[in-house]
Amino acid sequence: MEWRDGPSPGVRLLDQTRLPAVETYLDATTVDQVVDAVQRLAVRGAPALGAVGGYGVVVGLLQAERESWPAQRLEEALDRLRDARPTAANLAWGVARVRALVPSGVEAALAEAHRLVAEVESANRRLSVHGADWILARVEMKQVRVLTHCNTGSLATIGWGTGLGVVRELHARGRLGLVYVDETRPLLQGSRLTAWELRRDGIDHAVLVDAAAPSTILRHEVDVVVIGADRIAANGDTANKVGSVGLALACADAGVPFLVAAPSSTVDLSTADGAAIQIERRPDEEVLGFAGAAVTPAGSGAHNPAFDVTPRRLIDAVATEHGVVEPKRSPAPALFPATAR
Amino acid sequence: MEWRDGPSPGVRLLDQTRLPAVETYLDATTVDQVVDAVQRLAVRGAPALGAVGGYGVVVGLLQAERESWPAQRLEEALDRLRDARPTAANLAWGVARVRALVPSGVEAALAEAHRLVAEVESANRRLSVHGADWILARVEMKQVRVLTHCNTGSLATIGWGTGLGVVRELHARGRLGLVYVDETRPLLQGSRLTAWELRRDGIDHAVLVDAAAPSTILRHEVDVVVIGADRIAANGDTANKVGSVGLALACADAGVPFLVAAPSSTVDLSTADGAAIQIERRPDEEVLGFAGAAVTPAGSGAHNPAFDVTPRRLIDAVATEHGVVEPKRSPAPALFPATAR
Repeated sequence: MEWRDGPSPGVRLLDQTRLPAVETYLDATTVDQVVDAVQRLAVRGAPALGAVGGYGVVVGLLQAERESWPAQRLEEALDRLRDARPTAANLAWGVARVRALVPSGVEAALAEAHRLVAEVESANRRLSVHGADWILARVEMKQVRVLTHCNTGSLATIGWGTGLGVVRELHARGRLGLVYVDETRPLLQGSRLTAWELRRDGIDHAVLVDAAAPSTILRHEVDVVVIGADRIAANGDTANKVGSVGLALACADAGVPFLVAAPSSTVDLSTADGAAIQIERRPDEEVLGFAGAAVTPAGSGAHNPAFDVTPRRLIDAVATEHGVVEPKRSPAPALFPATAR
Repeated sequence: MEWRDGPSPGVRLLDQTRLPAVETYLDATTVDQVVDAVQRLAVRGAPALGAVGGYGVVVGLLQAERESWPAQRLEEALDRLRDARPTAANLAWGVARVRALVPSGVEAALAEAHRLVAEVESANRRLSVHGADWILARVEMKQVRVLTHCNTGSLATIGWGTGLGVVRELHARGRLGLVYVDETRPLLQGSRLTAWELRRDGIDHAVLVDAAAPSTILRHEVDVVVIGADRIAANGDTANKVGSVGLALACADAGVPFLVAAPSSTVDLSTADGAAIQIERRPDEEVLGFAGAAVTPAGSGAHNPAFDVTPRRLIDAVATEHGVVEPKRSPAPALFPATAR
């Protein structure tokens, strides 16, 4: 993701829906184009949504100037951008942060968006170090076998990665064994995107169907499970890609550590607990077909929640750029002091 | 599945790999063809494998006569048939039962295979009644919402069904609400086969990705989970399609009943517990692509266990044609007396 100046300024995005078959970029120069890219999942992943939210505000500001919008129309457009996907906390966070600079003009807003992106990447680097330190203090084996879900790498996070950032950090320290990659139906962010990133990095990995993860964990073929997060409530309950809580249940049963890796911009102190997190329901077609082909008989319905909530009691650790908290062991009802958000 | 007499006698099978797009039958008149159909999963499902094992012995006997095989060659062919898939107990059971009649000739063997098929279907009817009784004694709601995994209907069981037999029994009693159908990656037996059967029966259902099942159970949108089984050890540990133990973990956490429905021919008293059950590893290609299209970058590996083992401590009930046993509550180490096998 990068900001493009020139005659048609806007944000350039790698279209993740076409990976790994095709690497193609799209330039969003209107708010509608940004919203569409977010809803189609051309850009996805909590930290990346924060960045596109920030740049999207600048896109809106430029469009408002170009098309002489009344102030009210810009506000409505930015509300639409903020609400384009309901579960990830970071999108609304990125929009709010740059929106505060709207009265100061395009240049100030763009500078804030660039600052936000730099901070997100730096946060990912730091949380990856904290996460790797935490794992290596708990896991005895020389080569750690990690299972991960969805895509939490550079595609999701502009740069280094959150969950996959921890994996990369272990790799950089020479302590990474095999990475088990959940394929992550329905949209296959694991087999399409995470496998693509790991291939590029030369990291040894095996793709498995999501349903195979619990038994692989129970057989202790996995030493730690690391996921990202879309929204972390004040009490530590964590919304992430659907399937995450099934991994957490298997980890709790097997005594395998379960780590959430996310920047503090994913923590939403205004959400008390998981019950208050809105879970996005996505179109039936994502489930009824596979890689574009229909597999289910005509007339069958679907149930397609895109996220689930892992309760705090199943989470061993949350790594942010500020350090690691341990929800399962912590007696405090509030895990994250307001200053550490 | 049916036995075809005539000039080329053999077993006729609906090719399940082509469903729901194409309904096509194949006639297996040699042992190699039967083995190939079993290994390609043209025929699958524990009770159906018992039946095809029985008919396969007759196919072998006829081929041996036709091609004047020495006795040793027939024995080797029947061993290959017995071992064509390692996890399901029923295949070896069906082969052994009809093989005992080989010395008595083709007619006696075929009569035994027909008897076996009739018994399997009758067992499925009875276990479905026991399973439905057990559920309705425990679930208060008028319309029971059932979640199921893989395909345990007439395609898997020659006739009525095991897990899906229980669903059909609830439907026949007017007590069935929605059926949640796990799509069951990698081969999509849920979305391809179970949805196809439920459509034909006019039963309301919703297909979901396997990873969405645990959170759907934890939210109590499901009243009971019903699965089939490929092999049940003497202590109650149950091997079934990969993903089953993840459902059992979610049920245990949420207090939702977890029921295994299987004929007693699935119980293997010679297997002490789940650790002794061989888990079939299937080809990487099943995970890395779909319908011939690659979804994963070239060079990525896969991890593809076809089954998993649910430990007895997570199973509320096992329904066979002889009645229901309750592994979780039972103090006895041996759940199944030898007489009830």
